[in-house]
Amino acid sequence: MAKSKGRVSDAVMRRMPKYYRYLKEMRDDGIERISSRELSDKMGLTASQIRQDFNSFGGFGQQGYGYNVNELYEEIQKILGLDKTYNCIVIGAGNLGQALTNYSGFEREGFHVMALFDINPRLIGMSIRDIPILDIEDIEGFLDQHRVDIAAICAPKDAAQSIADDLIKYGVRGIWNFAPTDVTSSSEVVIENVHLSDNLHTISFRMGGYSL
Amino acid sequence: MAKSKGRVSDAVMRRMPKYYRYLKEMRDDGIERISSRELSDKMGLTASQIRQDFNSFGGFGQQGYGYNVNELYEEIQKILGLDKTYNCIVIGAGNLGQALTNYSGFEREGFHVMALFDINPRLIGMSIRDIPILDIEDIEGFLDQHRVDIAAICAPKDAAQSIADDLIKYGVRGIWNFAPTDVTSSSEVVIENVHLSDNLHTISFRMGGYSL
Repeated sequence: MAKSKGRVSDAVMRRMPKYYRYLKEMRDDGIERISSRELSDKMGLTASQIRQDFNSFGGFGQQGYGYNVNELYEEIQKILGLDKTYNCIVIGAGNLGQALTNYSGFEREGFHVMALFDINPRLIGMSIRDIPILDIEDIEGFLDQHRVDIAAICAPKDAAQSIADDLIKYGVRGIWNFAPTDVTSSSEVVIENVHLSDNLHTISFRMGGYSL
Repeated sequence: MAKSKGRVSDAVMRRMPKYYRYLKEMRDDGIERISSRELSDKMGLTASQIRQDFNSFGGFGQQGYGYNVNELYEEIQKILGLDKTYNCIVIGAGNLGQALTNYSGFEREGFHVMALFDINPRLIGMSIRDIPILDIEDIEGFLDQHRVDIAAICAPKDAAQSIADDLIKYGVRGIWNFAPTDVTSSSEVVIENVHLSDNLHTISFRMGGYSL
């Protein structure tokens, strides 16, 4: 990253969104304060693991008091960059692309979907909660005229890498890839490859008798 | 698990599907043999990490030869339980439920979707690649008459836990939950909670300057 704030381990990086989720739920339930013991019980982590995680960001909480839920929630919200807004597009307006676009939670969190793009003439011209499905042929012009921060790729496997390369060339800095292949880049962009089948394989694996 | 074959760490559990993916791709590309060095470069893991992972399952590969891609692929396929077939249902026939049902890769891997269930009368009676959308009211009878191994929950957050409880009561042993909440159970079933928003939050987090 160009303006690196610091390196955190992959494990910490995966846990931060989980803290955020739990704190949001507690806040919504009107819980004002939580001891580190209660938080660790809820999250299935040790209290020292939690302390260590938070220390990566300067540390929160107060000896003997525990955590103020709302303050901690807001701190982690900032760390996750959820105090900002992001212009997003979705490449591929099939079921998955539509599912992501329809999920109103993303909009509430500041992820604003501007448009979907597809190759299918039957989809082009339609819209999903007032968000237009545009012709993938027109994406270059769109990216010239709009700042797009994050693109979700819900396209076929064989097209994913070249789509990502084009997006990155036009300044998209975040790629959320759902095509069943690992998209990569040498540029300083953020890429998350989501492999839903990996989750399913973990289920069949564990059903075969392996346990954590 | 009732018939525990052994405990493996969460990290190993997450890596096994990834090995499977890479080996499948190599096999499809006609690669017959790979050195542990090449495999580690491809996967972004150290050779000793790979050896350690494989040793959890008795170890594969041969000093000086490396790995026979097809043999290793088939071994890991078995470990992941992908040499078996699974009867699956999908609860919630919205975009995400339809996306999962439409993904033909699952069928090829032995995950056979028997039916979707929904509460929406406009969806009930329709079908997705010949798989019927049934009334959620009829699920009890369906589970009485069919062996269902895995259920994907693509229902609203507030309904997810009670749906899971019912499914488990009727003998479903694997729950693949996409509702944005952690479904839990005291029974010996396998539950994978998928939080797509966690991935998105990891992107905004890393775009803010944190790096691995």
